[in-house]
Amino acid sequence: MSSYSDWLAERAAAREEAGLVRRVFPSDVGGPMIDLAGNDYLGLSRDPRVVDAAAVAAREFGAGAGASRLVTGTLAVHELLEAALAGFTGFPSALVFSTGYHANLSVVAALADADTLIVSDAHVHASMIDACRLSRGRVQVVPHNDVQAVEDALSQRTEARALVLIETIYSVLGDAAPVAELASACERHDALLVADEAHALGVCGDGGRGLLHQAGLAGAEHVIATLTLSKSLGSQGGAVLAVPAVREHLVNTARPFIYDTGLAPAATAAANEALTVLAMEPECASQVRAVAGRLADACGVPAPEGAVLAVPMPGPLEAVAAVDAAAEHGLRIGCFRPPSTPDGISRLRLTAHAHLSDEEVSTATKVLRELLGR
Amino acid sequence: MSSYSDWLAERAAAREEAGLVRRVFPSDVGGPMIDLAGNDYLGLSRDPRVVDAAAVAAREFGAGAGASRLVTGTLAVHELLEAALAGFTGFPSALVFSTGYHANLSVVAALADADTLIVSDAHVHASMIDACRLSRGRVQVVPHNDVQAVEDALSQRTEARALVLIETIYSVLGDAAPVAELASACERHDALLVADEAHALGVCGDGGRGLLHQAGLAGAEHVIATLTLSKSLGSQGGAVLAVPAVREHLVNTARPFIYDTGLAPAATAAANEALTVLAMEPECASQVRAVAGRLADACGVPAPEGAVLAVPMPGPLEAVAAVDAAAEHGLRIGCFRPPSTPDGISRLRLTAHAHLSDEEVSTATKVLRELLGR
Ligand SMILES: Cc1ncc(COP(=O)(O)O)c(C=O)c1O
Ligand SMILES: Cc1ncc(COP(=O)(O)O)c(C=O)c1O
Repeated sequence: MSSYSDWLAERAAAREEAGLVRRVFPSDVGGPMIDLAGNDYLGLSRDPRVVDAAAVAAREFGAGAGASRLVTGTLAVHELLEAALAGFTGFPSALVFSTGYHANLSVVAALADADTLIVSDAHVHASMIDACRLSRGRVQVVPHNDVQAVEDALSQRTEARALVLIETIYSVLGDAAPVAELASACERHDALLVADEAHALGVCGDGGRGLLHQAGLAGAEHVIATLTLSKSLGSQGGAVLAVPAVREHLVNTARPFIYDTGLAPAATAAANEALTVLAMEPECASQVRAVAGRLADACGVPAPEGAVLAVPMPGPLEAVAAVDAAAEHGLRIGCFRPPSTPDGISRLRLTAHAHLSDEEVSTATKVLRELLGR
Repeated sequence: MSSYSDWLAERAAAREEAGLVRRVFPSDVGGPMIDLAGNDYLGLSRDPRVVDAAAVAAREFGAGAGASRLVTGTLAVHELLEAALAGFTGFPSALVFSTGYHANLSVVAALADADTLIVSDAHVHASMIDACRLSRGRVQVVPHNDVQAVEDALSQRTEARALVLIETIYSVLGDAAPVAELASACERHDALLVADEAHALGVCGDGGRGLLHQAGLAGAEHVIATLTLSKSLGSQGGAVLAVPAVREHLVNTARPFIYDTGLAPAATAAANEALTVLAMEPECASQVRAVAGRLADACGVPAPEGAVLAVPMPGPLEAVAAVDAAAEHGLRIGCFRPPSTPDGISRLRLTAHAHLSDEEVSTATKVLRELLGR
């Protein structure tokens, strides 16, 4: 196996030389940290109600779904979650997937055939980029948040159909999409807007119902939302929210739905319970935004619309040094460096959490001010 | 949104007319059935030890991993499971993914660049087919289980590197791959064999260690295995087993690993416990094969090497009628019809389960004989 071992060694050496080696290490080993890196924005992953629902579902329905949703892998709890997600966000129907990644792969690949133009914002998530490659459509990448570029692409198309791919809150920079303008462009040009609300659910809009709901777009026939159950809902899995005709199309044609084992009962029930908690405690969403505002203030950047803050740094070394220094002070933060940043700028990435105590937020802002020399 | 609603309606009508509408319905509503359709081959999804492990992990570590494995989403329990999977199957290292689908997407896309030939068996799983589309390699599909065709493709290649994609037990027809011959062809032609053991783990080989282990290929540098945790292990998730250089390459380059939330603690711990049970009770694997033998005998087909049986039927209508008749007699079985069968032949698909009682198997064989007029 020499050609592969040589190639793997070469690639490893190149990463090493570029200082870009990624490693996995357990985050639950070592002292407790203030988490400003994970995506469990509301702390629901450890909420006793959510955790109980997971444990009870494992005991009642088993540790796994045992088969594809189309064979014997659909349980009543999947349908309950689908109804709850649709009800909460204001869409007429929902379909649950085993990851958010599967949801994005599925919706794009199933809705774009050879007669479809896919207009993709330059900053969309890896799962949407992979989805474009899986689809048969022509892909046109447009500059980030550029509504005019979307209009131009749509109006100049020769394809019968078009999809526009965006995130409502972008995962890397944390900025929001101009959803109303984009949806209106889609409507005028007979296109579908596919909006990933992964980082908006539980954080943005009325009680965390997302930016589409806030813009009055939930349930519109030309709008599809994708979600993950693994961030604000503290669990695992994903979902697509759309009109029933889209749901039915996905059930029949989306390969990462059809040929995949159903979401585990524990994860399904946990997400369902998290949604119940969120509906009962709508203040979680404004809390997380308030924490984000305090962190942003400490870092000298504008308050973000969601829970994700990006703080530009002079270079990759400074970014890594800041992450390490923060860790020494008990703060877990992340950073993005080229080639993972869309524009070559290294940044710290911080996420706000609704369940941090006032004291923890004060400690965090103090450390951040010091680190950033403010 | 008229162009899309028209298109969706057209597609739905075409499915309806072809009699190929797929529906999801909860399998836990209605009376108890003898399950000959799911992939929980050893019944471990409902084993109290496995279910307890899931419940305890949810309580201890939360309902979700909260972030990518590379951020804060790796827990000690992920590393425990990786060590256990490697130890059990005889590979030097393992990497856990949130679905088996992600494992296949990752390994192929990360290992095939533009200078790679991908030789794919005609019957590989949808996730491997999608993986080929995500990769930059040239894909050559070869006839099913045709070692000579694989040799020819490898020896005629102009690319520096080559991957050969197979399943060790094929999910649709249930037949086994000639793994020793294929691995030897790969070794001679400086190629990597990527073998999906989804349906072999827990069923084939010494104590369910899989067909690669049985062939003495576990841990060979030119062999990579992919697994799902969602079948014999009764949970959710997937894994890649390989030499550490491959694992490190995946951690650094596999997008469905890097940009995806880590596997939920409950699913991780459940799979880990299932592996412990399997190691302590190696007879499970031979039990499931014995049940498969009895079912095969009743259906008049040869005993399969694994747990999956395919029974050819005269046509799609007969296949569907048999599934419905079996359900009326309390048996849950599945069927494959064109376009889901690789060769246009409609088949019943039955799966054997180690935990069926002798009486349940007798009932099942009696019903099957009647249904098939034998
Ligand atoms: C914007 C966005 N979409 C989709 C995903 C994928 O979701 P999941 O982790 O549930 O697969 C992520 C991150 O994980 C994300 O940040
Ligand atoms: C051969 C094979 N590989 C991979 C998968 C995907 O595994 P998972 O359901 O864990 O995503 C399946 C079925 O689900 C399968 O049958």
